[in-house]
Amino acid sequence: MADQRIVDGVLSGDRRMMARAISMIENEDKDKHRILSALFPHTGKAYVIGITGAPGAGKSSLVDRLLSILRSRGLTVGVIAVDPTSPFTGGAILGDRIRMQEHALDKDVFIRSMGTRGSLGGLSRATKDAIQVLDASGKDVVVVETVGVGQSEVDIIKYADTTLVVLTPAGGDSVQTIKAGIMEIADVFVVNKADLPGADRTVAEINIMLDLGGATRPWRPPIVRTVTIDGSGTDEMYAAILRHSEYLKESGNLERLRKERTRRDVVDLIEYRIKSTVWEQVHGSPEFDDVVARIVSRETDPYSAALQILRQVNLDRCKE
Amino acid sequence: MADQRIVDGVLSGDRRMMARAISMIENEDKDKHRILSALFPHTGKAYVIGITGAPGAGKSSLVDRLLSILRSRGLTVGVIAVDPTSPFTGGAILGDRIRMQEHALDKDVFIRSMGTRGSLGGLSRATKDAIQVLDASGKDVVVVETVGVGQSEVDIIKYADTTLVVLTPAGGDSVQTIKAGIMEIADVFVVNKADLPGADRTVAEINIMLDLGGATRPWRPPIVRTVTIDGSGTDEMYAAILRHSEYLKESGNLERLRKERTRRDVVDLIEYRIKSTVWEQVHGSPEFDDVVARIVSRETDPYSAALQILRQVNLDRCKE
Repeated sequence: MADQRIVDGVLSGDRRMMARAISMIENEDKDKHRILSALFPHTGKAYVIGITGAPGAGKSSLVDRLLSILRSRGLTVGVIAVDPTSPFTGGAILGDRIRMQEHALDKDVFIRSMGTRGSLGGLSRATKDAIQVLDASGKDVVVVETVGVGQSEVDIIKYADTTLVVLTPAGGDSVQTIKAGIMEIADVFVVNKADLPGADRTVAEINIMLDLGGATRPWRPPIVRTVTIDGSGTDEMYAAILRHSEYLKESGNLERLRKERTRRDVVDLIEYRIKSTVWEQVHGSPEFDDVVARIVSRETDPYSAALQILRQVNLDRCKE
Repeated sequence: MADQRIVDGVLSGDRRMMARAISMIENEDKDKHRILSALFPHTGKAYVIGITGAPGAGKSSLVDRLLSILRSRGLTVGVIAVDPTSPFTGGAILGDRIRMQEHALDKDVFIRSMGTRGSLGGLSRATKDAIQVLDASGKDVVVVETVGVGQSEVDIIKYADTTLVVLTPAGGDSVQTIKAGIMEIADVFVVNKADLPGADRTVAEINIMLDLGGATRPWRPPIVRTVTIDGSGTDEMYAAILRHSEYLKESGNLERLRKERTRRDVVDLIEYRIKSTVWEQVHGSPEFDDVVARIVSRETDPYSAALQILRQVNLDRCKE
């Protein structure tokens, strides 16, 4: 299909073309960059909300509730549900994304799941590109939901303007999640399942963590309690997002944040180009196999071998 | 300090020199590669056991038990406890690695914690290099323990010959952990806290997952139940490790595995060299800042900008 038709389709909000563009991104289609280039001038308008937290914390239900709130205010919404499920297990087996059903027929809501294809570095980049597609399509808000425990999920969520970290009162979950390194990416803490015993302790723990770590931070992440079954607290959650968004804009941090993100994008793209150039020339080559064999037999070492291989590669091809 | 003294020290098993070498690795010391090169001919002898699982699954206690078993068989052991704790929270605050105390004075046991410094990609590489140091020092077994939930932890654990995935019967933990993508890296499943209710269900769930995904796999990961408080099941855990190690050797998979790992090492080293070369020339340069500003104002797009920057870089410097 001609690139232009996809670009025009995305820009007019055509769901089929949006889905097509995101599939091209996922499949590392060779025309991907051309399409993203063409869409780029039309991006930068959507507000991106990230939702992360441990498995089972109720992120999907919160996204459901958030969708209803955003729609009731007349805002159009794109949702990207990132599931770093292994290719081995396959997302479908373990019960899955047949959810957010009440919004499925709403033409101003676009929902897309993305899973691992190849490396997770690839997933993070694909998520970023998919956000661009939804942004260019004119969605007012893009919501990115991801399981948040390791650094890889942090990489995905860093494209959000406002990030919600969802915790639950369940056994030691909160502290452990914080340990895993998502503390500093939270703009709003959501203690979900707040009707369960231990919610007060979870809130107290978060406050202690904030007191310890954030003395000089200008934005202290508010802590909101929610119960998704009856929706209680979700309006407060939305209010907290709005407050953070206003803070970002007034402080100039939104601009700084997006500049920093742009910088990282360019860095990623440069590295990606160079890597592709190297691997096109090296992977599967008999010389490479030979070097590996000589390392395994301890005739050479990986450090010397890496240099030797590099010397044989025409790096200037990545400048074409 | 002269590199040679450190190399000699590591080779003779001098704990201070081992610690020094690992610190150099963590700090990205410029002599790091020289030392690793010199150690490399003496590596490849240690058997590497990885232990991963969700936070709170009891990995540390299992490592304790495993250490006692290995030591009782006269084997020398190195332990690397990888903690991808964020720099913000700091590992020390949340109660920590003052553990495995009974082995602290045993001269044939070397225990080292490693945390995030910079990127997690860096942590994975540092862990790999630290394994090399312990291997070169003559340790019979190296145990790598890490929180296992995301792809980043999978990256760390992939340097293990035998990987234990630790699950617990606690609320939905097992299935969720499996979802997060560590199913296919398990060589042995350990259901810890097996005295808790739900252990049977956890075992059954793992079996279902194995039935679904692994019809053609020659090694079906055994499932071992353990209780670390009284040590029950830990001998069976060790027996399962031994069986897997024998399977790897007899099937030729150990050689294949290590060859594949070598290949990946060289790949990583090449990419690292290129990245360093690019960023030495680009980061902080006024040209780069200018390009970022023009992307933010939508005058250019990241894809064109990346190419433009690349054209200005002297890539051949990474061949020096």
